[in-house]
Amino acid sequence: MVLIVQKYGGTSVGSAERIRAVAEHTAETFRKGNMVVLVVSAMGGETDRLISLAHELSSNPHEREMDMLLSSGERISAALTAMALNEQGIKAMSFTGRQVGIITDTSHTEAKIEKVTADRVKQAIDNGIVPVICGFQGITENSDVTTLGRGGSDLTAVAVAAALHADLCEIYTDVEGVFTTDPDIVSEARKLDMISYEEMLELASLGAKVLQARSVEFAKKYDVRVVVKSSFSSNPGTVVTREDKEMEKVAVSGIAYDKNQTKFTIMGVPDRPGIAAALFRNIAEAGIVVDMIVQNISSDEKLADISFTVPETDTAKTRDIVEKVARELNAAGISTDKNIAKISIVGVGMRTHSGVAAKTFQTLSDSGINIMMISTSEIKISCVIDSKYTELAVRVLHNAFELEKE
Amino acid sequence: MVLIVQKYGGTSVGSAERIRAVAEHTAETFRKGNMVVLVVSAMGGETDRLISLAHELSSNPHEREMDMLLSSGERISAALTAMALNEQGIKAMSFTGRQVGIITDTSHTEAKIEKVTADRVKQAIDNGIVPVICGFQGITENSDVTTLGRGGSDLTAVAVAAALHADLCEIYTDVEGVFTTDPDIVSEARKLDMISYEEMLELASLGAKVLQARSVEFAKKYDVRVVVKSSFSSNPGTVVTREDKEMEKVAVSGIAYDKNQTKFTIMGVPDRPGIAAALFRNIAEAGIVVDMIVQNISSDEKLADISFTVPETDTAKTRDIVEKVARELNAAGISTDKNIAKISIVGVGMRTHSGVAAKTFQTLSDSGINIMMISTSEIKISCVIDSKYTELAVRVLHNAFELEKE
Repeated sequence: MVLIVQKYGGTSVGSAERIRAVAEHTAETFRKGNMVVLVVSAMGGETDRLISLAHELSSNPHEREMDMLLSSGERISAALTAMALNEQGIKAMSFTGRQVGIITDTSHTEAKIEKVTADRVKQAIDNGIVPVICGFQGITENSDVTTLGRGGSDLTAVAVAAALHADLCEIYTDVEGVFTTDPDIVSEARKLDMISYEEMLELASLGAKVLQARSVEFAKKYDVRVVVKSSFSSNPGTVVTREDKEMEKVAVSGIAYDKNQTKFTIMGVPDRPGIAAALFRNIAEAGIVVDMIVQNISSDEKLADISFTVPETDTAKTRDIVEKVARELNAAGISTDKNIAKISIVGVGMRTHSGVAAKTFQTLSDSGINIMMISTSEIKISCVIDSKYTELAVRVLHNAFELEKE
Repeated sequence: MVLIVQKYGGTSVGSAERIRAVAEHTAETFRKGNMVVLVVSAMGGETDRLISLAHELSSNPHEREMDMLLSSGERISAALTAMALNEQGIKAMSFTGRQVGIITDTSHTEAKIEKVTADRVKQAIDNGIVPVICGFQGITENSDVTTLGRGGSDLTAVAVAAALHADLCEIYTDVEGVFTTDPDIVSEARKLDMISYEEMLELASLGAKVLQARSVEFAKKYDVRVVVKSSFSSNPGTVVTREDKEMEKVAVSGIAYDKNQTKFTIMGVPDRPGIAAALFRNIAEAGIVVDMIVQNISSDEKLADISFTVPETDTAKTRDIVEKVARELNAAGISTDKNIAKISIVGVGMRTHSGVAAKTFQTLSDSGINIMMISTSEIKISCVIDSKYTELAVRVLHNAFELEKE
């Protein structure tokens, strides 16, 4: 018997009709002799509806209450999906994050999974019952409800697959798989049949919304074979798995972009050890994840400019900290820029192919696009540019690296 | 310090604006030096929306899944209400049925409370935090979510008030209190200032929707002083409390009606001991609550007709059982009638005033209304009539007993 964890996103369970389709598909998989475990997100639009209700009542709702509020969405979709499966003649039972035993830390709205017991899920499987698990949620040791951050249902699926030693974790979404870049921007964008955890991780954390970054880390850590595929077709999708030799033949696998970042610059900071550390410690303590960091020597040689980017949603919180630190350091000034985009070129082949960086910079330069910040890793080059050039940059780079070709 | 449990129904928390009004009212009560514990229902319309989604997917959804589905509604309103209180500068925290420690039996959709620990609620109160409790829900020993049946939030409020030894349990609703009868039918209907638990119990279980019957039983058992009042005005409402001598001066306190019952008759049943017992044991085992029961000797003297009423929602389930039993008993036939209404005259004064029954029957007869079934208790007379005469019957009885007069 093959054990498959199937995760369905909000669009896939967005209406009674869609939920029925999911149930039919699950029933089919089950009747072929597989054991299926479902993980569902809230019905499409539900989470946004709840967030907007919260913001009608409070400009800065308490995070514990946000988790209580938002975790209700998955209970609804899980219960409805279990009902739809029952209607198909399949025994099914919904389970909350608590009932699954998804124990998290206490970082409300961005909780980290510490443990997955899955006892009741295993018991259900042993009794031939299809478990339908509420994605996105867990519970603290103190029995408070937590959520796992945006896209957290992917993480639930992978974590449950790991806990159950499932053979496969299928992530059903509204696209056909992982593409070389956003097909809305580049019509020649090609679906990848296979991608390594490392590349997926870069693409995921860089704004390719197809799979949550933390779920990919988790999959890599526990070696969970993940398939990203469409819930609207029977195409095979993209397999996310361990790197193999074939993959290294290609220098660049894909191009991602992220417009939802804000760039901060603190100008004229004393250029001495410990300054950056103090700044970023303050930011980290506020639970804000800094992405790119660049430090330049200022015109005055004893002073430095520090630039960094944070998620756009953390702009206000970050500004408070930056203003405080800038005052303490007697900095020359600060600037905030929301009109930026980060373009990233990703590929495990970069390890063996040289010249990817040079080609990237040249291509952007040829199109008159100025690069504000650069950051690189073993398998990635990211450039921050003016956001109005996002689509142009993605198109010219996709073309330059000939990603439309197999 | 006075400890007040305030329960707000679906209409009272039906929108962000309404929730803000509840928070303002609570904040005011809190700032006067009282400690407040809130119990909230799902936002108006939410439960119906979820039920209709369930019925789109399944004609007979599993009850465990219904509970998982419906219990989400109160999480939403409780979290939003806590946020609104925080925004008023009041420390507040939402608690689910589980977090409150409302332990129930396993009768999904109609669970009975077995225990209320309320440890976290007490802790919150000690820390000056206003607890906002999800009404309507509990949890089994096995950690499954249950709901307490229609109007279950009233029961939550009374049970929590009992567990906390609260001074008062205020039930906020969309009417001004308990009336002598439905003001939509009789414009002269008068609001009662005070009513006994016994009378309220009869009125509640007889279809006066203002307060759930089980919550009144609970209040009586634990001597919880309940006030039913409007969340849209500052009028004093109706106090539900122990019977006192004043109350006995009046023969009749109110008139209730219930159109949501179905009458079954099994005709030509052998008139020997044990027959009725067998029938009603079968019905009880299916979890159906039978209301009125009347047995007549049939025209053939060795045969009897048994009539009884059940909630209209249980009609299909009941018919299956009745058909089976009728076959086994070789009964002459069965009949089902949904077009009935039960009219009930309630008053603790009936214990000392005679002639209420006679006056009731005479009044109905004078209006040409035929009585199909009669059942009486110490403080109540109920008559089943053709449902088309409901409003007429209520009006003529209200007039006959002069209930419009103080």
